[in-house]
Amino acid sequence: MIIQKTSSSRLESFDQENYSFGDHFIDHMIICEYDNGKWGEAKLMPYGPLSFSPANMTFNYGQACFEGMKAYKDKDGQVFLFRPRKNFERINKSAKRLAMPEVPEEVFMKGLKVLMDVDRAWIPYGEGRSLYIRPLIFATEEGLKARVAHKYMFAIVASPAKSYYTAPVSVKISDYYSRSASGGVGFAKAAGNYAAAFYPTQMAIEEGYDQIIWTDDATHEYFEESGTMNVFVRINDTIYTPPTSEKILDGITRDSFIQLAKHKGLDIRVEPVAVKTVLEAQKNGTLKEIWGVGTAVVTSVFKAFGYKDQRFELPVLADEDSYALTLKKALVDIQTNQAEDPFGWRELVERNILETV
Amino acid sequence: MIIQKTSSSRLESFDQENYSFGDHFIDHMIICEYDNGKWGEAKLMPYGPLSFSPANMTFNYGQACFEGMKAYKDKDGQVFLFRPRKNFERINKSAKRLAMPEVPEEVFMKGLKVLMDVDRAWIPYGEGRSLYIRPLIFATEEGLKARVAHKYMFAIVASPAKSYYTAPVSVKISDYYSRSASGGVGFAKAAGNYAAAFYPTQMAIEEGYDQIIWTDDATHEYFEESGTMNVFVRINDTIYTPPTSEKILDGITRDSFIQLAKHKGLDIRVEPVAVKTVLEAQKNGTLKEIWGVGTAVVTSVFKAFGYKDQRFELPVLADEDSYALTLKKALVDIQTNQAEDPFGWRELVERNILETV
Ligand SMILES: Cc1ncc(COP(=O)(O)O)c(C=O)c1O
Ligand SMILES: Cc1ncc(COP(=O)(O)O)c(C=O)c1O
Repeated sequence: MIIQKTSSSRLESFDQENYSFGDHFIDHMIICEYDNGKWGEAKLMPYGPLSFSPANMTFNYGQACFEGMKAYKDKDGQVFLFRPRKNFERINKSAKRLAMPEVPEEVFMKGLKVLMDVDRAWIPYGEGRSLYIRPLIFATEEGLKARVAHKYMFAIVASPAKSYYTAPVSVKISDYYSRSASGGVGFAKAAGNYAAAFYPTQMAIEEGYDQIIWTDDATHEYFEESGTMNVFVRINDTIYTPPTSEKILDGITRDSFIQLAKHKGLDIRVEPVAVKTVLEAQKNGTLKEIWGVGTAVVTSVFKAFGYKDQRFELPVLADEDSYALTLKKALVDIQTNQAEDPFGWRELVERNILETV
Repeated sequence: MIIQKTSSSRLESFDQENYSFGDHFIDHMIICEYDNGKWGEAKLMPYGPLSFSPANMTFNYGQACFEGMKAYKDKDGQVFLFRPRKNFERINKSAKRLAMPEVPEEVFMKGLKVLMDVDRAWIPYGEGRSLYIRPLIFATEEGLKARVAHKYMFAIVASPAKSYYTAPVSVKISDYYSRSASGGVGFAKAAGNYAAAFYPTQMAIEEGYDQIIWTDDATHEYFEESGTMNVFVRINDTIYTPPTSEKILDGITRDSFIQLAKHKGLDIRVEPVAVKTVLEAQKNGTLKEIWGVGTAVVTSVFKAFGYKDQRFELPVLADEDSYALTLKKALVDIQTNQAEDPFGWRELVERNILETV
């Protein structure tokens, strides 16, 4: 690994109390380039711009995929990653579906840990704070022919994240727009999936909602995901979440919620969630909660949902009665080393890793 | 418009006989940046790399769309664009669906003509030769939050194209993969649509085909497009092509073929094309031709198609009996100013446009 440290850290001039998510970057980044059929040597270098022409194939054909993960600091200043191998596996699933080269485990995992260790001082400590980490792979070749590129870059950039707290939101159940096709790329964290979701989301916002509950594109009768999160529905005391498929991202938070719910003895069922079932439960008063889960906010609680021209309010539960918040707290406590980790999910970032690289 | 010409043209060192499509760029490019809610002044400048960080939003969320169009030179050295306003309209349809700012007509059209005029010497003349032009819009903001960007670049780059000729190809009718969802972005030239098609195409190639005939994702019972082309089927002497929809790109070549066919008094019908109908016509001998159309090759003739585990050969027709080739020739003759243009499709690029900018 090539190490090229910055000579002027930006940390001093970074206002740790006043910033918005995703706009400030830690001092360094990892990059590793793929050419001639193989990955080169990974490099730690100062975060900043590189050279790309407008004919860059990602700008033209969107051959790019990414991951989103977090590092947490505990009260002793120890740094932990959460299930990082899951992100490693998933970026390669995405890469494969986009006909991109898979990144080697060594490049991904060592890059991640070296970056975390070198920029350890950037990782926020405190309630709801973390470092958001973005590994990505994208085509770097220049060319105007729509074909698989021969050159790629793997990069890891990262940005301090302040708070998980998000006020309860209203969501619109989609009856027209969709985020994935059968036989498509919905299960991949493909760059293009996100751009495709922006306009429908804007339309939902214009109708007074914050996000969309995506439904299957053929019938719009089944829940898929919510915004960029997986979705859970609680009817009476049973939790439902749709099975993953080629249309639904296999979320790591989703999987952790399922495991935690089982561990707590809750009744959780992975099965298709029909819009009809949710509407009926709403009508007969058995619909208790709907929420989304994902790395960025862990859990987003929904206060209302819309379907066609109707808006339905969800019950307001005390925090301790909410499965969404109970599971969220259990997960955050594990992530931040405030609780035991019976699942082996936390991964300590050793100090002075550079000496062993 | 800001004009910044190169001081060292690369034209002399460009081998006009030996190059492959899309790898060589003309001396200049147009760029225009969007920020603070408005487009800045367009600029002609030397083609080359610019600065973008790996946190660039296009690399991460694929907010990018493009056009593909051509300029042709006639025997007198006059340069023509083909229906350029169609591309202008379509890039903005794509931009809208991707929640991107629409590019002003002035920026698009003047940029195009100035670039063509300044790099006039790069435009190849001769049978099947043209300049392939790529206008595109992509997000340029840096950020790790999946949201609509605030900064964009519009660019036009271009690359000499040698020949339309492509040998007849075999295509696989998709019964699993798909390129677009109902309520999705299939009608847009969204960057991510292309990356999503690469892997399925590789799978088809492994089965011995060159391209995929995309079918609807819900049932795979209806033709949508072929590769990155619109598709036509001829049964007896009737030509069929599926109607455009939110799942099918509204191709300019497709539209031109429809108009030309009508003009020639051919029986052409814009209606859903069922896989079943094509298979039946194949069986009873009435299936004459299947072909794809698009700007890059104008027409790609199919010699065989596969469905499930079967492969079917298509009849080999004399050029003059082929509707595909007859319409292709008629179109190319108009594009290259070798025939009258009753439709008003050709648009002359005036000389010394710079003096009027
Ligand atoms: C489309 C989509 N669904 C779900 C998720 C949740 O996945 P994870 O829990 O792994 O962050 C994400 C990513 O955050 C996503 O982009
Ligand atoms: C998906 C797709 N379909 C069809 C076409 C054909 O469109 P046009 O004839 O405007 O080039 C293209 C572009 O070439 C395309 O990318």
